Amino acid sequence: MAVGLKALGDLHQISGVKIGIAQASIKYANRNDVTLFQLCDGANVASVFTQNRFCAAPVIVAKAHLAEATPRYLLVNTGNANAGTGEAGKRVSLDCCAAVAKLAACDVKQVLPFSTGVIGEALDADKIISALPNLFESLSEDSWAPAAAAIMTTDTLPKACSTQFKLDNQQVTMTGISKGSGMIRPDMATMLAYVATDVQIEAVLLQSLLNKANRVSFNAITVDGDTSTNDACILMATGAAKVKLEKNSPPALIEQFYQVLESTLKTLAQSIIRDGEGATKFITVQIEAGENISECEKVAYTIAHSPLVKTAFFASDPNWGRILAAVGRAGIDDLDIENLTIKLNDVVIVENGGRASSYTEAQGQAVMDQAEICIAVNLARGEATHTIWTSDLSYDYVKINAEYRS
Amino acid sequence: MAVGLKALGDLHQISGVKIGIAQASIKYANRNDVTLFQLCDGANVASVFTQNRFCAAPVIVAKAHLAEATPRYLLVNTGNANAGTGEAGKRVSLDCCAAVAKLAACDVKQVLPFSTGVIGEALDADKIISALPNLFESLSEDSWAPAAAAIMTTDTLPKACSTQFKLDNQQVTMTGISKGSGMIRPDMATMLAYVATDVQIEAVLLQSLLNKANRVSFNAITVDGDTSTNDACILMATGAAKVKLEKNSPPALIEQFYQVLESTLKTLAQSIIRDGEGATKFITVQIEAGENISECEKVAYTIAHSPLVKTAFFASDPNWGRILAAVGRAGIDDLDIENLTIKLNDVVIVENGGRASSYTEAQGQAVMDQAEICIAVNLARGEATHTIWTSDLSYDYVKINAEYRS
Repeated sequence: MAVGLKALGDLHQISGVKIGIAQASIKYANRNDVTLFQLCDGANVASVFTQNRFCAAPVIVAKAHLAEATPRYLLVNTGNANAGTGEAGKRVSLDCCAAVAKLAACDVKQVLPFSTGVIGEALDADKIISALPNLFESLSEDSWAPAAAAIMTTDTLPKACSTQFKLDNQQVTMTGISKGSGMIRPDMATMLAYVATDVQIEAVLLQSLLNKANRVSFNAITVDGDTSTNDACILMATGAAKVKLEKNSPPALIEQFYQVLESTLKTLAQSIIRDGEGATKFITVQIEAGENISECEKVAYTIAHSPLVKTAFFASDPNWGRILAAVGRAGIDDLDIENLTIKLNDVVIVENGGRASSYTEAQGQAVMDQAEICIAVNLARGEATHTIWTSDLSYDYVKINAEYRS
Repeated sequence: MAVGLKALGDLHQISGVKIGIAQASIKYANRNDVTLFQLCDGANVASVFTQNRFCAAPVIVAKAHLAEATPRYLLVNTGNANAGTGEAGKRVSLDCCAAVAKLAACDVKQVLPFSTGVIGEALDADKIISALPNLFESLSEDSWAPAAAAIMTTDTLPKACSTQFKLDNQQVTMTGISKGSGMIRPDMATMLAYVATDVQIEAVLLQSLLNKANRVSFNAITVDGDTSTNDACILMATGAAKVKLEKNSPPALIEQFYQVLESTLKTLAQSIIRDGEGATKFITVQIEAGENISECEKVAYTIAHSPLVKTAFFASDPNWGRILAAVGRAGIDDLDIENLTIKLNDVVIVENGGRASSYTEAQGQAVMDQAEICIAVNLARGEATHTIWTSDLSYDYVKINAEYRS
């Protein structure tokens, strides 16, 4: 049950990006499960990957290839994560890349592999390689929507975001897709995102913009903190539009592009939370007036990961004591509880070290009855602020994760 | 549904500790909900309290009193945590202590208050004060078992541990009780423990022994990491037995006493996990060969708090990829995944960076079908080791926490 996740709107093509889709029957039957992105010459690519030390074979291979060449092809499969598979798994990823390179007459290092699905089972390279002719044949600039569906695992809805805007008086475009039910299922629903623009952007700048936007989008969502082994976000800039961004471009121009990028990534990231496993609530956790971003993150994630807070939201129960207790145990040793305030939307629930004198249960209940709720904590310590998004903890979360393999 | 939690056995009296029990009807009707411990002159007391910055009014008052006097009375109520109640809450705790002091003709600072129950609701001092005559009248050395029941909130079973042993050729005794469903419910089931011995132990030594034993017992259990606002563990040494321990006592003698203390605290702490909310499994997480205890704790709690690991255990599903992924995201940047091993009881599941070649699903299933399971991770980095205990995440956990106030 996705929370406020809309059907896909128009997804604008990105000149310089073609997408192929096919069935390889890796795990699912009768649905597309392999996707191939083809980038034009001159396109630049930036990337961020999972921080999990047990990163999957395709992540290891993709990072190695990115270090040595500019990618021309991204090959994505669902149904099998090719993770926890050791040396044999790396061989499979490399074999698939080599097969793409052969058909495309490019270097194997120009191909990046991505996998998502069950951990620890051998991925059959032959199934993917057999599907490559169909993938190449179907390459088209008009396949963003079917690609959004083809990269899904247990997502209930496809996720995408597309924008056209003027940059330096030229119309440019940004389109992205993502999959995942909240980075919460290393065995099944690893998070992947592919975003492209036709703006020409030099590689170093592209990477720094991605890093910055990633921190406030894909690195600011959690269902339960279970970072997967396969997470990846790829940003492609084809340069087909007549606008160029580089380090020395006017800061205002870079900033204008950055705002669209940040907005796109936030929409894609929030879509994952809206479709989080068993989610019935979309919860914004906004920490204000911290000494630094790091302590804001600490408080935000302590709230967002608290099973007690999450079950209270599932029950639409304004059990504010659980939020207060989570803030209190967030690890800020010199936190001054007398001065901080906690609000649910516009309702002040905690001030002066305890329940706000103005608070009534009816006010709290009115907020909790909504599907989208903001918890705002003002730490009264400084100028830093940080916002993350999370979902609640429902029976369906347990059901999905306990019964998945049975 | 408690996991392997036995009925109370014989609880030996501790000479110098009397316990009174009564009904104050704070929240529950027709059950005892207030308890009074009376300590003899010369008894020493050591204590550890919650680290939550939003600690409850009784915690603040108890700490202040401990700093100025040696306690003679401990007053415990269930049904209301007196937390998140600000200055008014402190007044209530102080009023209750003053009423005890008046009846006992002692200093108010010799009385420690403890509360457990709902957060954020005003505690009615009059109800407790009205019950004091009954509490004093019922004081008896033979009330450990009814006290174990009287301090319960939503615990399904009372928890206690009692031992008699020879120390320096004298028979001595240690008896303790605890309550809580896993430190996981700041609004209801805060953890409390009261342990007494008749050994004479000087205060500084008593506190250092408690600190040491607490780290490997009450500070090594988690259901979901939700440290409560009211946690407390009190260790009392009455000195009624003819054995004295002090800083300069033979180390072997202190160590002998310490081992009994550690064992008692572990039993009481594990009882809380066995009775954890919705628990169907009792899980030991044992980290070996870490560089230091801190990194062992990091890995242990990342596994123990992972909802994916916990739901897999609930489903008795040998979904070992979730354990691998949790170890990988535990925040040890230079973790060498090629050398570490992970075992479920005696079954090696991960080695050489992936699934152990010897592993079969049938082996994993045989372990997961049991109610008590050990996850052992060998980090292959050093000499440090740390063990914690946790429970699984079941439908009943969500039910208990989502439906509690409705």
